[in-house]
Amino acid sequence: MPVDPKRVVAHLKELQQLTGDASGAQRVAWTATWLKAREWFRGKLDGLPVTQHRDAAGNVWLTLRGASEKKLVLGSHLDSVPNGGWLDGCLGLLTGLEVLRSIAEEYGGHPPVTVSLVDWADEEGARFGRSLFGSSAFAGTHTIEADRARQDRDGIRLDEALKECGIVLDRIGEVAEGRKDIAAYLELHIEQGPVLEAMDLPLAVVLGTKGVERHAITFYGQEAHSGSTPMKARRDALAGAAKLALEIRSIAAKHPDAVCTMGSVKTFPGIVTAVVGRCEATLDQRDLDSRVLAEMFREAYEASQRFAQEEGCTVEWSKIWSIEPVPFHPELVELCDQAILETVGVSHRMPSGPLHDAAEVSRAGIPTVMMFVQSLAGISHNKIEDTRLEHLELAVLAFERLASKTLQWIAGT
Amino acid sequence: MPVDPKRVVAHLKELQQLTGDASGAQRVAWTATWLKAREWFRGKLDGLPVTQHRDAAGNVWLTLRGASEKKLVLGSHLDSVPNGGWLDGCLGLLTGLEVLRSIAEEYGGHPPVTVSLVDWADEEGARFGRSLFGSSAFAGTHTIEADRARQDRDGIRLDEALKECGIVLDRIGEVAEGRKDIAAYLELHIEQGPVLEAMDLPLAVVLGTKGVERHAITFYGQEAHSGSTPMKARRDALAGAAKLALEIRSIAAKHPDAVCTMGSVKTFPGIVTAVVGRCEATLDQRDLDSRVLAEMFREAYEASQRFAQEEGCTVEWSKIWSIEPVPFHPELVELCDQAILETVGVSHRMPSGPLHDAAEVSRAGIPTVMMFVQSLAGISHNKIEDTRLEHLELAVLAFERLASKTLQWIAGT
Repeated sequence: MPVDPKRVVAHLKELQQLTGDASGAQRVAWTATWLKAREWFRGKLDGLPVTQHRDAAGNVWLTLRGASEKKLVLGSHLDSVPNGGWLDGCLGLLTGLEVLRSIAEEYGGHPPVTVSLVDWADEEGARFGRSLFGSSAFAGTHTIEADRARQDRDGIRLDEALKECGIVLDRIGEVAEGRKDIAAYLELHIEQGPVLEAMDLPLAVVLGTKGVERHAITFYGQEAHSGSTPMKARRDALAGAAKLALEIRSIAAKHPDAVCTMGSVKTFPGIVTAVVGRCEATLDQRDLDSRVLAEMFREAYEASQRFAQEEGCTVEWSKIWSIEPVPFHPELVELCDQAILETVGVSHRMPSGPLHDAAEVSRAGIPTVMMFVQSLAGISHNKIEDTRLEHLELAVLAFERLASKTLQWIAGT
Repeated sequence: MPVDPKRVVAHLKELQQLTGDASGAQRVAWTATWLKAREWFRGKLDGLPVTQHRDAAGNVWLTLRGASEKKLVLGSHLDSVPNGGWLDGCLGLLTGLEVLRSIAEEYGGHPPVTVSLVDWADEEGARFGRSLFGSSAFAGTHTIEADRARQDRDGIRLDEALKECGIVLDRIGEVAEGRKDIAAYLELHIEQGPVLEAMDLPLAVVLGTKGVERHAITFYGQEAHSGSTPMKARRDALAGAAKLALEIRSIAAKHPDAVCTMGSVKTFPGIVTAVVGRCEATLDQRDLDSRVLAEMFREAYEASQRFAQEEGCTVEWSKIWSIEPVPFHPELVELCDQAILETVGVSHRMPSGPLHDAAEVSRAGIPTVMMFVQSLAGISHNKIEDTRLEHLELAVLAFERLASKTLQWIAGT
């Protein structure tokens, strides 16, 4: 029996009713509302010939055993940011459920390869600031010690909150065993950006997730009285930061998909009557090509030194965080492209700026690809996040095609 | 008997010992330490043939009656900012006391015109944010109603604090009567800027206080995900503010003494992973020429509109505060120039960026001039505020000459 896209949409709306409020979705991981969402999801499995397993990191796996131990995994996440949208994460999971159902029915409960659906724990990191929790534990890139001391805004520690949900932080490394036999991983997600809408396209193949260089940059000048200090006698830390805020756009513009963002600027003393003595800024740079990323970082760093010198200031950089680009599997990219072409007649290839659980799975060496469906106005992590119903339905159909093709690909390899 | 500059310096050091601590001067108006400073000052009047009078706004007047009712007034303020310097305000007052003593002695207690020394109440506005309190009440520019509701950081209201010091807020308008018969007002102050030190000059004539246009400027763009939003699809509010932060320097550079300062920039949501959706900045513009000030305001306003348009943003301005330039009296400017030339052989004319009580007095129609003495490193409102001892002593001598010349000028007019 083919997939029923309307059932996916109905499930999404039901979930929104159950776990959202007037401000948006509230399925923050490690909270009662998240557990309620997972309980609701379990209720949707009745009649499906699957086994359920919650691993040591809190990821929930549904498995439809096939003729081969080799496994196709579909996945996404039920958790949301506070005041989130109705599609981020859960679209992928509920579409995966519909596809799993369709495969079970098509093969009479016995597909040629094993098929799993995984609900990753805490993709958003909204409560403790540690995103991709479950998938990075799975991929083995998770460093427990660094996260043990994390606290939420009420001072509750990560390990305490996990314990409430039955997870022992010291044992999450055990989930890496689950990587055995996985031959491919597929994930459907909303784009969360404006690219597909601007191109008037419903769907895209995701080429990989961009690498990120994230730095804190501080310009040091000299605080001075705004009334008594002549322009030429100033060492204005804001001027250095302002020049850099504009220069990063020229740096990004040299590469088609690169982005550079100064998202935060803080001025000290930050009063109307004082020349800025210290200016703290953040810089977030992303590209799918690690050489481009390294070049953009170098250019921004050198520009900041030049601007500091021009302004009689000094500048210091400190790394906040960085991650390498994660290109997806070339053969699965082709399969995804075909699935989209066969469904809607036109496809597009693009990198993902946001990170996803798929990046962690791919870093673990598992062939991986993602599919994007258009977002309206490029807005996500907000209650007004939305996608046209017709596009949601096309996404379900295309993702089912991709799963079928991948299943054949695994069976054939 | 001539003035004794060393006594002024000794008084300044004594006051610093009495009312300062390791962090600097602590003579914040309407506090116990300020009252202690005023009590100490009263103790320095023994043997002087002066009458004392505290007016309805808390200004303290010492008066040496002369042959004519026409009055020469010297003035400054004893109050300081928290953690202030050892010279701001009190240098002028203690030099005024020394000059008053010298005049009393020179004329055997009966100068040709009446001479007063005034200690203005709350020049700094450090506790309630209302600077030039006493002098603006005197000048009649004080609006009581707007200030009645002001509170300090402990929630104590201005009128309550004044009552503790014996001042009834509703009656401060009565001080305007004190303007009668005043023929000239003179004030000595540290420069609080780096101009004289850069020119290697000890003293300057102050041409007036610059007018100020002070605005809050908000650029509105579109918050967007730093990873998923292509550079070309962005409406970055920070970009508009960054362009303006740089443009105001070109605007100021067209005029020799003009200054434009962006002292505060705030970004919203202000996180590393979001394009800035809203950027709030402040702009402080100053010049002694009201036409220049108006032109700079217009240029900055038009530039902000242009930048907003270039960035797909909008921009809104709201006035924080403004004041007209206050040029000092041309004949007194000449007298001050002569006094400096006769004392140190070289003079300089400059506007004051910071406001002073003298500006309020001048706005009341009283012929006024100020003298500046060099500040080291241009630093004030800080415990490291300093001036070379030799320059302090030259300032006392030059100010005494200015007072003598002005006394003759009043007697002759």
